[in-house]
Amino acid sequence: MQHSTIHLTAMKSMALSYLIFMVTIVTAVASPIDNQIHLIMPHSGSAGLKHPDEINCLSWRLAVETDNHKEWSQIPGSCVDYVGHYMLGKQYRDDCEYVATEAYEYAKGLNLTGDGKDVWVFDIDETTLSNLPYYASDNVAFGYIPYNSTAFNEWVRKAVAPAVPGSVKLYKQLVNLGFKIVFLTGSREALLEPRKKNLKAVGYTEWEKLILKGANYSGNAVEYKSGERKKLEEAGYKIRGNMGDQWSDLIGTNPGDRVFKLPDPMYYIA
Amino acid sequence: MQHSTIHLTAMKSMALSYLIFMVTIVTAVASPIDNQIHLIMPHSGSAGLKHPDEINCLSWRLAVETDNHKEWSQIPGSCVDYVGHYMLGKQYRDDCEYVATEAYEYAKGLNLTGDGKDVWVFDIDETTLSNLPYYASDNVAFGYIPYNSTAFNEWVRKAVAPAVPGSVKLYKQLVNLGFKIVFLTGSREALLEPRKKNLKAVGYTEWEKLILKGANYSGNAVEYKSGERKKLEEAGYKIRGNMGDQWSDLIGTNPGDRVFKLPDPMYYIA
Repeated sequence: MQHSTIHLTAMKSMALSYLIFMVTIVTAVASPIDNQIHLIMPHSGSAGLKHPDEINCLSWRLAVETDNHKEWSQIPGSCVDYVGHYMLGKQYRDDCEYVATEAYEYAKGLNLTGDGKDVWVFDIDETTLSNLPYYASDNVAFGYIPYNSTAFNEWVRKAVAPAVPGSVKLYKQLVNLGFKIVFLTGSREALLEPRKKNLKAVGYTEWEKLILKGANYSGNAVEYKSGERKKLEEAGYKIRGNMGDQWSDLIGTNPGDRVFKLPDPMYYIA
Repeated sequence: MQHSTIHLTAMKSMALSYLIFMVTIVTAVASPIDNQIHLIMPHSGSAGLKHPDEINCLSWRLAVETDNHKEWSQIPGSCVDYVGHYMLGKQYRDDCEYVATEAYEYAKGLNLTGDGKDVWVFDIDETTLSNLPYYASDNVAFGYIPYNSTAFNEWVRKAVAPAVPGSVKLYKQLVNLGFKIVFLTGSREALLEPRKKNLKAVGYTEWEKLILKGANYSGNAVEYKSGERKKLEEAGYKIRGNMGDQWSDLIGTNPGDRVFKLPDPMYYIA
């Protein structure tokens, strides 16, 4: 009950902002996908950060990003505003672009073997494609409302997700350096076509492999992704870089020579 | 040259603040160690955050904390103010206490074997003892001035470091739950006496083992700490938790059942 109250209050305080960006979403869905993942929230009116007594939301987010805080299923009710402002603001974009720049600095220093076996593994959701327009809707509230797979898959099938900031640029830089690209996602195989369409629409035009999860696979994300990376290495590929927004993309076996963690304070995948 | 200019500007803008906390440091050295690691910087005058064009310091810090940014030897010149304000402000304290709370929530849910073999491994610097009074001095500038082992060891020999926020409380909670405590530090054995004295002075009154690095050991931190943890496990200890401020405390072999990463934007140990 406490959570519901907090949530209603948070929702009311964000009503104006929602009006503004619901218009943006409608526009985004109706028109070709551009380079902006979302309009940045205006820094006026009620956009100042709140500091609820319940929890220090910055500490919570740091704990999430460093994998201290695990197995969570929704963001704290008192951090809906904070997470929303972070995701809709300049900082999330800067944080993503910083990771992409760091990854490129690492990648360009490598000596590739030139045999077409040097690969870069990208996760998809919140790594190459952004679900922020979906997560910003009031039925999701940046991850405060429990995950609804039906609604989420409906959004994925629209294939209108924008790119995560910095990721298309990095992708193109890696292709130019000679890396083969592997997209490795927890999306089920039934979503192959919309995912392909969406990747191409925002600029990821080619890849060595696009690996989706089989309809009957029942392991967790660490097992699934470790297993797929193992198959890649057994097939002679060398995973030189591995990028994801979840630690479950980056731990386990066969992680690759170096991993890069993108920010994601909206959901947790074990 | 650009760095020097930035540094001088940053130093000038912090002159008043330094005056205030240099007084604090002198007081701290002269009197018994209390529970505060440092007075919080007053939120007035020039204490507002700057946003230099050179680098987004929040993105830099997130990259450090998630281990995207590696092998760095000093903090960016344009982030001296940012790191200083973070370390001297409420957020660093809250971030540390959040990790300690998270660790206790995990620890109290474990079933200990009761044979005295369940251990919790703590690193020392920036994990149980804070070197912030040293790092805040203008000869160090929160890690902008390159590391000086002579000066740092001189500070350590004083044995006046305060505790990291939340860590003594967590330590006592773990002891009460029945954990045996192992301190595992990269400090050399020559510093055994001051480290013991300092730990005891701030409230870490007992331990199963206090492991320091041998005078002639030449491996890196990951190798050293992995090797010592392996010895612990070979001796029958079960590492149920492992806490450090550096990823090199937490990766490698025998990491323990769960690791906890404390914040540290001041230095990097490979």
